[in-house]
Amino acid sequence: MLMQTHEARLKALREELKRRDLTGFIIPISDEHMSEYVGEYAQRLNWLTGFGGSAGFAAVTLTHAAIFVDGRYTVQVRDQVDESLFEYRTIPGDSLGEWIVSVAEDGAKIAYDPWLHTWNWVAALEKQVEPSGIAMVPAETNPIDAVWADQPEPSGAQAIVHDDTLSGRPSAEKRSDVADWLTRNKLDAVVIPALDSIAWLLNIRGADVAHTPVALSYVIAHKDGRAELFIAPEKVTPELTKHLGNAVSVRGRDEFTAALGEFAGKRVSVDPEFGVVGIAQGLREGGADFVFKQDPTILAKAIKNPAEQQGHRDAQARDGAAVSRFLRWLEVTAPSGEVDELAAAAKLEGFRREHGDLRDTSFDTISAASGHAALPHYKVDEDSNISIPPGSIYLVDSGGQYPAGTTDITRTIWINSADGSAQPTAEMKDRFTRVLKGHIQIDRARFPQGTNGGQLDCLARQYLWEAGVDYAHGTGHGVGSFLGVHEGPQRIAKPSGGQAGTGQELFAGMICSNEPGYYKAGEFGIRIENLVLITQQDINGAEGPYLGFETLTFVPLDRTLIETDLLTQSEIEWVDSYHRDVRALIAPQLEGDDLAWLERECAPL
Amino acid sequence: MLMQTHEARLKALREELKRRDLTGFIIPISDEHMSEYVGEYAQRLNWLTGFGGSAGFAAVTLTHAAIFVDGRYTVQVRDQVDESLFEYRTIPGDSLGEWIVSVAEDGAKIAYDPWLHTWNWVAALEKQVEPSGIAMVPAETNPIDAVWADQPEPSGAQAIVHDDTLSGRPSAEKRSDVADWLTRNKLDAVVIPALDSIAWLLNIRGADVAHTPVALSYVIAHKDGRAELFIAPEKVTPELTKHLGNAVSVRGRDEFTAALGEFAGKRVSVDPEFGVVGIAQGLREGGADFVFKQDPTILAKAIKNPAEQQGHRDAQARDGAAVSRFLRWLEVTAPSGEVDELAAAAKLEGFRREHGDLRDTSFDTISAASGHAALPHYKVDEDSNISIPPGSIYLVDSGGQYPAGTTDITRTIWINSADGSAQPTAEMKDRFTRVLKGHIQIDRARFPQGTNGGQLDCLARQYLWEAGVDYAHGTGHGVGSFLGVHEGPQRIAKPSGGQAGTGQELFAGMICSNEPGYYKAGEFGIRIENLVLITQQDINGAEGPYLGFETLTFVPLDRTLIETDLLTQSEIEWVDSYHRDVRALIAPQLEGDDLAWLERECAPL
Repeated sequence: MLMQTHEARLKALREELKRRDLTGFIIPISDEHMSEYVGEYAQRLNWLTGFGGSAGFAAVTLTHAAIFVDGRYTVQVRDQVDESLFEYRTIPGDSLGEWIVSVAEDGAKIAYDPWLHTWNWVAALEKQVEPSGIAMVPAETNPIDAVWADQPEPSGAQAIVHDDTLSGRPSAEKRSDVADWLTRNKLDAVVIPALDSIAWLLNIRGADVAHTPVALSYVIAHKDGRAELFIAPEKVTPELTKHLGNAVSVRGRDEFTAALGEFAGKRVSVDPEFGVVGIAQGLREGGADFVFKQDPTILAKAIKNPAEQQGHRDAQARDGAAVSRFLRWLEVTAPSGEVDELAAAAKLEGFRREHGDLRDTSFDTISAASGHAALPHYKVDEDSNISIPPGSIYLVDSGGQYPAGTTDITRTIWINSADGSAQPTAEMKDRFTRVLKGHIQIDRARFPQGTNGGQLDCLARQYLWEAGVDYAHGTGHGVGSFLGVHEGPQRIAKPSGGQAGTGQELFAGMICSNEPGYYKAGEFGIRIENLVLITQQDINGAEGPYLGFETLTFVPLDRTLIETDLLTQSEIEWVDSYHRDVRALIAPQLEGDDLAWLERECAPL
Repeated sequence: MLMQTHEARLKALREELKRRDLTGFIIPISDEHMSEYVGEYAQRLNWLTGFGGSAGFAAVTLTHAAIFVDGRYTVQVRDQVDESLFEYRTIPGDSLGEWIVSVAEDGAKIAYDPWLHTWNWVAALEKQVEPSGIAMVPAETNPIDAVWADQPEPSGAQAIVHDDTLSGRPSAEKRSDVADWLTRNKLDAVVIPALDSIAWLLNIRGADVAHTPVALSYVIAHKDGRAELFIAPEKVTPELTKHLGNAVSVRGRDEFTAALGEFAGKRVSVDPEFGVVGIAQGLREGGADFVFKQDPTILAKAIKNPAEQQGHRDAQARDGAAVSRFLRWLEVTAPSGEVDELAAAAKLEGFRREHGDLRDTSFDTISAASGHAALPHYKVDEDSNISIPPGSIYLVDSGGQYPAGTTDITRTIWINSADGSAQPTAEMKDRFTRVLKGHIQIDRARFPQGTNGGQLDCLARQYLWEAGVDYAHGTGHGVGSFLGVHEGPQRIAKPSGGQAGTGQELFAGMICSNEPGYYKAGEFGIRIENLVLITQQDINGAEGPYLGFETLTFVPLDRTLIETDLLTQSEIEWVDSYHRDVRALIAPQLEGDDLAWLERECAPL
């Protein structure tokens, strides 16, 4: 089949808009569940424009078109998207509303897919364009789907049972908590579109979305503890039906819209972050009294119970052995100069797969050599792939999805030359050691109950700031239990600039990443990432409850990059103690040369 | 004259309410300018209830009365206020609105003085009580004033010129900036009720309020750079009139209400924190299009210009000599056990007054012996005054108002026994040293432009948190230039719990206090406070603009309380370097025994 050009696709979309008497259309990277990773069927922006990044959107009118991406993608968008078709715009500086006003006229009708945008997002846009006589119009069906001939079908993978021994709590108990929450808030029901919330609430998993083991579905939970699961029938096995039990009705996913109309006179909530216009409209039109309220499973899901905590420890132990074997392989192989980024990522996944429990990687591995490592979100592909140069820094950020837990780890490695003589520069060692000091400060921080992630963030940055440098990303995100590798609501990051989650109080049982970094554009990048579990701290004489972190990730740090003179005695003790723990946990899983490598890497500084 | 009882006062107020056909009245500690410190004439809560704290309010109906105070004052209110007259309520736990609803009936009219409450405060209260059929009613005149026979007159002190050599910028320039701001914001005028904003904008000072050198007045600034100053004629000297010039019209303070009616069809702003109901009503009734917007002088005032910065350095140098002489006097005198808290405060003020430039203390000196020091806001009076026990910790938090700048310093001192043998406990030294470590981390912090105070706060707390302890107040507040010792908009504090100012970006030129502490109830209290100036940092290789702190306060720290083993080498170097700077700056101002004392106290650890 002949590949259709993006010019032809844009033309087809405009003809479709004309047929529908519309002036324009907005194309996000989004699905009906506001998922972080979306299925192939929902990659409409990529199909229309060629843009392969993970965030951004386009707006098309009959006469103009623009693509909006953030600072991470300003280079990439120029490589992938034809400027003669789509003007480049940078968010948050450039405003979609202002762009629409500048290209559309009084009376224009700009359409959007009501299942791909939240109510609040559309309301904010309407406020910007309506004074110019421009209307935002929900499209009956998505105009892209009408012209995308070979659009993939949504995944038909079966949903599976997530065993109570892993989840730690039966679904009936969780649903009972949600019912209590509904009663307390004088609500009759809650609509849950978030796929990981559904998976957590019903103790089910799926394989419909890359990297996140969830099943495409909706849930409506009722105040009597019952729930309705809307899911394609082919995903439902007898085992799943049995697991769900009598209190969970299974209905077709295509019945969901109609079901929203069954709440006349009832009070129903939906999370504003996941409440797309389609859901809000369905509830309103059916006569429900509908309110926005945070999904009641979000905080409960973030606070891992003892079974989930133990699951994470188990998953991390096996993951740590795989990553350690990879690092030893890298040390032996890469100085030849013949290992490229894609091969390294494949090799790492291979080590992980040798343990039968791996279900998926938890995100696309960031396998970044030299200058590529300076892009915190670098995604290697056939075009960008380079050999890892001997005598350079290599950064690998990766993770696995195991039924017991989700992992996420970054190591920054000095790649030696074939003759073993290459040395990192003083600057590289200085920056690596400052990143390490920040990582240590977070790891050993103690803080009173009531503290949020925004308060702790600067502990990780202080040594970099001292040298006049920083990193332009957060210090830590939440992590799911065999669910999303990025999970809310908590976040360790700068509280300024609208970082959602930095105001969320941290609770014992939450899991966060601890990943400070440093990036020198075009030269090298550094990031040290372990996962940590928030735990109660038993401090002699403490006045009130105090929290701290238990390290979950155990893989050696590259001592070649450590400038010991920059560490205090107690920081050196932290590194040595960490390596003793790595050795104790990982050594039993290794043998031969791998074991010898581990012993050497875990020796005291 | 016979002292009227509080019972008689409450009865008189209720009769006045009956005469006016009102059900109740709210009595805050507040003036028409929402000042932190209010004049004697506005001490209505104290007159009615006997309560002497600095924050709180009462509500009185014909049948019920309650006094609302925060956690600092739960003990004091029980000492000072008769519970048979006023029920005790604790804020923020107890709600005024709920209390009104519980004691007043449908149809009740609860009055408030529209000049003593902001628009937003009244609106929030109305939202709580209106559903129960209770109306909030602005009182024509204050009912307390009608029954307070010997109410003091507002101060008649003259306003004075604040010289351009001290202010660093002529008023015309500042008014021109305000005019530009008005034009940018499509406003015709701004009403400025905040007394320190007026003082800053017009380069005038006054003596109408204790501790803050401001003159009771209002300003309305216009977009053409003109301003109107509403002030009692007796305050205006020929020198002041000359200084104000032709572009500033001087009108009587009693013309202000009428002047609010002169803006029909004009767009006028007022700061929501200072916009009392009386101002909003006056503008609305006069037909102005009135909007809430932060006072445009607030950020400009916080960013000190070079002349103001130098003024602070000068004021701190002379203040440091006075405090140093006091500490030497204390060391010699207090071990006898014959120095009490009041005498110590008076002695300290005496040393400050020996330098003729002192205009006032910048707040009531906190002179706190042993257990009293555990109350961060302790105010010594004849009733609470105790002798400072030898072998105990004494805390003194004090400051001076000098024309060049405002000072604020806290030192925590070990008072020896007469035989010189008393030693602080290991716990005291541990806590003092942890407070010191936090103080040092703030002092030497560097941070990128764009950082706010909420992000830096945990640097000061981390070593206390490590030991499971904390302090229940902010780490730093802004300080004025011969103005308020507490000045917005910036603040270093926990960003949770609604701490205003923690989200304000820090700018070079701002002054903050750096005052971590630790308080052990009933036993001892520790606080170490210096003022610091935010400055640009010249860091080799810095990627972008970086800020840091210049220390402004120079007085020795009490080494008796330092546990050197808890300090890192670089922290010891900070203490030694600080003491070298103290010696260099203060020694030239001292002689004899004072000088010998300073030399000893400033020796390396």
